[in-house]
Amino acid sequence: MAILVVDIGGTTIKLKCSSGDEERRLPSGPELTPDVFVQRVREATADWSFARVSLGVPGPVRNGRLVREPVNLGRGWVEFALEHAFGVPTRVINDAAMQALGSWEGGKMLFLGLGTGLGSALVVEGVVISLELGHLPYRDGETYEDWLGARGLARLGEERWCAAVFDVVARLKAAMVADEVVLGGGNVHRLAHLPSGCRRGENARAFLGGERLWDPAWRVF
Amino acid sequence: MAILVVDIGGTTIKLKCSSGDEERRLPSGPELTPDVFVQRVREATADWSFARVSLGVPGPVRNGRLVREPVNLGRGWVEFALEHAFGVPTRVINDAAMQALGSWEGGKMLFLGLGTGLGSALVVEGVVISLELGHLPYRDGETYEDWLGARGLARLGEERWCAAVFDVVARLKAAMVADEVVLGGGNVHRLAHLPSGCRRGENARAFLGGERLWDPAWRVF
Repeated sequence: MAILVVDIGGTTIKLKCSSGDEERRLPSGPELTPDVFVQRVREATADWSFARVSLGVPGPVRNGRLVREPVNLGRGWVEFALEHAFGVPTRVINDAAMQALGSWEGGKMLFLGLGTGLGSALVVEGVVISLELGHLPYRDGETYEDWLGARGLARLGEERWCAAVFDVVARLKAAMVADEVVLGGGNVHRLAHLPSGCRRGENARAFLGGERLWDPAWRVF
Repeated sequence: MAILVVDIGGTTIKLKCSSGDEERRLPSGPELTPDVFVQRVREATADWSFARVSLGVPGPVRNGRLVREPVNLGRGWVEFALEHAFGVPTRVINDAAMQALGSWEGGKMLFLGLGTGLGSALVVEGVVISLELGHLPYRDGETYEDWLGARGLARLGEERWCAAVFDVVARLKAAMVADEVVLGGGNVHRLAHLPSGCRRGENARAFLGGERLWDPAWRVF
């Protein structure tokens, strides 16, 4: 049973069907509303056949529904019934949780997504836990996301941003008592070296996460 | 098969056997070493019969072993083989995780223990996750534990401490995307009212947690 996996980032929407190798991309951004999103995805996948949809969304999800508007998209997402938009059974998961799920190889793994924002999720065997660590206070009255997200990178410059990544990874790894940290997201390539106890994420892992979402061995919280 | 549950706090050690109702208490404190601890527990339970031991310890545990010295006890705990100290199969778990495990009633539950330090753990169905959130930065270069632990209470006074508890609970509940927060620990009685989405913990739940630790339906990470 083919699964369409959709990863809605702050700047790009990525699409892949579990029955094929081709990845397609669509524009995202701070004006993206859910009806425009659904229309674009329907058009872009008209020649694909799938019986399930997994949606990774850049906002907090509880019990399969967005509970706050995604900060880096347009408005109207909380009220919109994404689970009914594609005419096949659809599951909604936080985007960082989806990539985290696909990145898990063992132990207690913290995922941090260095993208437009700062995504986070914790994975242990059989269980994915969505987190929103990015909005916690870090320094000078600012949050982890203020420092490690895209706006932090632009303000700090690459060198100071990298130093902040190293500091925050060590703090959050200790706070979660994690065995390892996977660093994903669009800006991870800016790190020449990784902090100890870290592994680099891969974009393709988000698609694996979307497939695992339908595997009964996994539960999402 | 009776289980001896031992909850090692910063000021008191609490003991209970799953086959009886009697709770016994022993002194703890910043001088407590593991050999003294084991001797006291052996003496205090000489008339009890048990085939399993659950130890809740006030420090970070990974794979059933303490990975750092408990801040509020004496030294020598990391190297000490607690799992062999009582001559019966013994499991070691973080003390907050043990009370969290016993407090779980459903959903995604964050436990915060307002004691000498600030314990934390997250529980979902079948899974307990030890956390060390207390050492993350909060305000003015100080940690959540600096504000909400016993030293914070002494410094801030009850009114400002209560206000800090409300603020931190709201932040950490959002960061963990939790359905509810259980507030336990020796100082929770100082809160006349609880923040919304909160439930008061009960000491007896730590003993239930120690029993659940041997239930194959539960896993600890």
